[in-house]
Amino acid sequence: MKKLSIVGVGMVGEAAAQIIAREELCRELVMIDVQGELAKGKALDVWQAAVESGSDTRVCGGGNAELLQDSELVVITAGVPRKPGQSRQDVLSINLPILDSIMRDINRHAPAATVLVVSNPVDVLTYRAWCLSELGRDRVFGQAGVLDTARMKCFIAEETGFSARDISALVLGGHGDSMVPLMRYCTVGSVPLSHFLSSQQIERIVERTRQGGGEILGLKKLGSACDAPGVAIAQMVDAIANGRNRILPAVAILEGEYGRTDIAMGVPCVLAEEGIVRVIELPLDAQEQAMFDHSADQVVRDIAEMKAL
Amino acid sequence: MKKLSIVGVGMVGEAAAQIIAREELCRELVMIDVQGELAKGKALDVWQAAVESGSDTRVCGGGNAELLQDSELVVITAGVPRKPGQSRQDVLSINLPILDSIMRDINRHAPAATVLVVSNPVDVLTYRAWCLSELGRDRVFGQAGVLDTARMKCFIAEETGFSARDISALVLGGHGDSMVPLMRYCTVGSVPLSHFLSSQQIERIVERTRQGGGEILGLKKLGSACDAPGVAIAQMVDAIANGRNRILPAVAILEGEYGRTDIAMGVPCVLAEEGIVRVIELPLDAQEQAMFDHSADQVVRDIAEMKAL
Amino acid sequence: MKKLSIVGVGMVGEAAAQIIAREELCRELVMIDVQGELAKGKALDVWQAAVESGSDTRVCGGGNAELLQDSELVVITAGVPRKPGQSRQDVLSINLPILDSIMRDINRHAPAATVLVVSNPVDVLTYRAWCLSELGRDRVFGQAGVLDTARMKCFIAEETGFSARDISALVLGGHGDSMVPLMRYCTVGSVPLSHFLSSQQIERIVERTRQGGGEILGLKKLGSACDAPGVAIAQMVDAIANGRNRILPAVAILEGEYGRTDIAMGVPCVLAEEGIVRVIELPLDAQEQAMFDHSADQVVRDIAEMKAL
Amino acid sequence: MKKLSIVGVGMVGEAAAQIIAREELCRELVMIDVQGELAKGKALDVWQAAVESGSDTRVCGGGNAELLQDSELVVITAGVPRKPGQSRQDVLSINLPILDSIMRDINRHAPAATVLVVSNPVDVLTYRAWCLSELGRDRVFGQAGVLDTARMKCFIAEETGFSARDISALVLGGHGDSMVPLMRYCTVGSVPLSHFLSSQQIERIVERTRQGGGEILGLKKLGSACDAPGVAIAQMVDAIANGRNRILPAVAILEGEYGRTDIAMGVPCVLAEEGIVRVIELPLDAQEQAMFDHSADQVVRDIAEMKAL
Repeated sequence: MKKLSIVGVGMVGEAAAQIIAREELCRELVMIDVQGELAKGKALDVWQAAVESGSDTRVCGGGNAELLQDSELVVITAGVPRKPGQSRQDVLSINLPILDSIMRDINRHAPAATVLVVSNPVDVLTYRAWCLSELGRDRVFGQAGVLDTARMKCFIAEETGFSARDISALVLGGHGDSMVPLMRYCTVGSVPLSHFLSSQQIERIVERTRQGGGEILGLKKLGSACDAPGVAIAQMVDAIANGRNRILPAVAILEGEYGRTDIAMGVPCVLAEEGIVRVIELPLDAQEQAMFDHSADQVVRDIAEMKAL
Repeated sequence: MKKLSIVGVGMVGEAAAQIIAREELCRELVMIDVQGELAKGKALDVWQAAVESGSDTRVCGGGNAELLQDSELVVITAGVPRKPGQSRQDVLSINLPILDSIMRDINRHAPAATVLVVSNPVDVLTYRAWCLSELGRDRVFGQAGVLDTARMKCFIAEETGFSARDISALVLGGHGDSMVPLMRYCTVGSVPLSHFLSSQQIERIVERTRQGGGEILGLKKLGSACDAPGVAIAQMVDAIANGRNRILPAVAILEGEYGRTDIAMGVPCVLAEEGIVRVIELPLDAQEQAMFDHSADQVVRDIAEMKAL
Repeated sequence: MKKLSIVGVGMVGEAAAQIIAREELCRELVMIDVQGELAKGKALDVWQAAVESGSDTRVCGGGNAELLQDSELVVITAGVPRKPGQSRQDVLSINLPILDSIMRDINRHAPAATVLVVSNPVDVLTYRAWCLSELGRDRVFGQAGVLDTARMKCFIAEETGFSARDISALVLGGHGDSMVPLMRYCTVGSVPLSHFLSSQQIERIVERTRQGGGEILGLKKLGSACDAPGVAIAQMVDAIANGRNRILPAVAILEGEYGRTDIAMGVPCVLAEEGIVRVIELPLDAQEQAMFDHSADQVVRDIAEMKAL
Repeated sequence: MKKLSIVGVGMVGEAAAQIIAREELCRELVMIDVQGELAKGKALDVWQAAVESGSDTRVCGGGNAELLQDSELVVITAGVPRKPGQSRQDVLSINLPILDSIMRDINRHAPAATVLVVSNPVDVLTYRAWCLSELGRDRVFGQAGVLDTARMKCFIAEETGFSARDISALVLGGHGDSMVPLMRYCTVGSVPLSHFLSSQQIERIVERTRQGGGEILGLKKLGSACDAPGVAIAQMVDAIANGRNRILPAVAILEGEYGRTDIAMGVPCVLAEEGIVRVIELPLDAQEQAMFDHSADQVVRDIAEMKAL
């Protein structure tokens, strides 16, 4: 990929930038933030790190939206994280105008860019970004499930002792309560996880994954996770930049899949150079469908509230 | 890993050496062959390739068995491939004394080395190597299924268009007729393959995998495959050198698993620094068990013939 | 390397941990901090990031010094950075007791571990660590010059447009004013830099490198660089873990080299599994020697003040 | 890079293909040979190896020149190697019509493709390819010096024990007698090689590099080197595919540089996406210039003979 921009240079944006530059997923990487000097400083640091790693990705930063020009992909990590005591709406009411402003910049300076939304609440903001964009659902989507599966894989590796390279997992829905784990599809080296773990062990892993973000926030206290979210972004960027046709969970606009329309939900997708080339619709059992519906209903309410803001 | 030796520097041994050196899977790589000068020449070529790739693995070669000294792992690729018109026994009668001679060298110069047998017929020769070794079954095993699954994954990638990174497959038994495909366990991005392909398509992939070695021999005419076998060896070496606890198919001595004892068969194993730390026994359905038994019976016959030689 | 510990999980310690885990430079990575929960939280984040990258490095964290047990290498990044208005002594007076406490822990729980000091002022603290350790100078040393050369390479890449892979540079002394650039030794693809840039351009690069840390601090305001320092640490760890015999600048105890004894200074060293196996003494011209002496005299004064504390 | 073709699937072409696919230097890799089935068989093997390595590069092969269609880069490795007793002209008389035929195919099916000539004698054949092409000298060039410097680096690593990552070397001219080593420019970790080795040691390294191809042929007897030549090709492809602006030796058409015109010679070049974007003209001392002239005069004679064929 020639040019990629990251808007928002908090901890997650910086972590993603560092890995993207190291792995040379684009030739030119731009870090943009309303705090232009901060973006410049972090970009310089990331560039120096890249050079020392032997990477030829050029990194620059700043506060000017014109830097977006000619981006093929824009990753949006801007916005505030949810703080203790804040409701979903509190966060939404702060982050919505931030997203709107960024989408105006993208529409003006890089209207053909694919958009990857990471800011929270990611399902509502992905939906909003798609509404504001001129592009199809293949080109505007969000990150949620790659991080959740990363955490689940980590807990499975810890519990079983098996190599990270052999563990494969899948979740639908969003972070936390709205996550729909599909443990039937979870395997280690092609062997179903249930061959190795009891249902209680699996249930504990599911529960811990559900609380994955909160566990880290509870320990770090003054900040959320950044390293694993950064890698999750880089994974999606890699699939796009290298046109891999990978099956990865993404927050996608549904057009009838899983019985839903006009909503953004975390579902397995095929990611290629053009973005989401396919939403994969898996057969769900009754319990999974109920969890999915519960999760989707919440997003419907959130979208309604968003529209009311 | 400090030191690894490859005995036999034909095309497969050379391909494995090139990747092992490139990936720095050991500090010192020794290439040994009865044709000592040939081994020296290939080692020099492999070393120069490694240096140009930024690898610090030292590579040397020669014909003297003393070079085995202090090896932690010995990969045996020596022997002739099966030529058109030759029976299994013809090949066995040639390769058996070669293996015996190598095992004598190993027992003398590197008796504590883990042994990975690649020479054909791999199940019989793995069994023989284990009989001649002082070591447990965890430390003497063979390569067969990693190559078969590599081929199967390749055909699945071709048929579905999905990324190689998302495809997971599993086979039991040996190459060719004796391969026992477990297509129930085959997934793409955690999703069962049957979600994407019809049973006819899957059957074609199984059949082509079964003939995988023959297809390449038929096209190349004067030589068998070497690149994919080389990578298959390197995968197993990586799991051992990095102590990964990976689930990989290996030709292992069975001690009651799958209803068999005193036999070497391709089964899923956990590969770690100490070698095979566990044989994974999967529940088979009637058809799979029948195929497995058919395959095992053949190996039993081969072992009996081997003992009669 | 089996086990590596990082003491101090600020931004630099976390950045180093993330890369070390991603690149699998050790099997087990421990992140230790007086804020034990913070260390636990960051370790979990780094581990999840590693798993998603396919790394099998196990990461854990906490506040208990017993976690150091069996570490082969301990990286010390603990301590406060220098804030605007603070003198060198101000920082030293805060960080010295922190280092002393960590060295007591190391001597107790991992007395055979190699020690890499990153905390500032790095030359004085490296000297102190060596004094407190039972080990030779080969096993206790500091990071300074790898970061400075990374920055210089970055500025050269920017000015010339050449690939980061072809740029080679060397500095003596410490960060900032005490840095002794050896531009005669700076090359691009084996060609001396002076073939491509004027002496004014080179002088600008030297000056910018000298101010490299300050430039980023000035832009970020609330924090120093972390990504490039993290990579610099990882480079040194890689040289040790893989026994590379790399020539890298390190803060080493001098034993007569460059006319100095009983002092820690940034000089080119050969880094191997055992640590610093050789200090390389380059012939300096009069100007370079004067700069080196100026730099060394400052460290002598700092060490005297440190002893007086 | 979207599509790359290799014409000639002997050992060198296959080795290059294997690395290019493994490193994902292009999306689609085509292996072409007059022996179409052989090319198909090797392509299948290389593809299966790539898949097992997690690479998504698609590999196919065959004998039909139409497969060249839309290639961005064509690597020519076809032709016979020089056998004992054969003169340069003997080899040229065989390989010239092969090259001519391939260039006709390229001009017809992929006229915009950059051309990298590897077949021997590489200087004459590069010149010929350029004459037959419609493209500028930036787009038609050859490989010689990357392999020679790889060998030299290997011998330096062996003699000094230093890491391959720190060794930098440069040669002009062609393989063997016509190689012009520039040992003044050879460094380890930015330090001139003469700091570590005596002039006798350096002279031995030069002499061994000069005989580098012969040494391996002498040992292997029935075949030339393939692994290091494969990596050398992959290095050049990487510089082009990733637009690195690397300084690498290449066989380039000279337009006055080094006092020569209308000739192809091994000289340091800047390799970027567009091919050779610059020939670097280094100041030579009298001895180096004499060696260069001797080498160039030989190429002039060879070109004259080639034109007479």
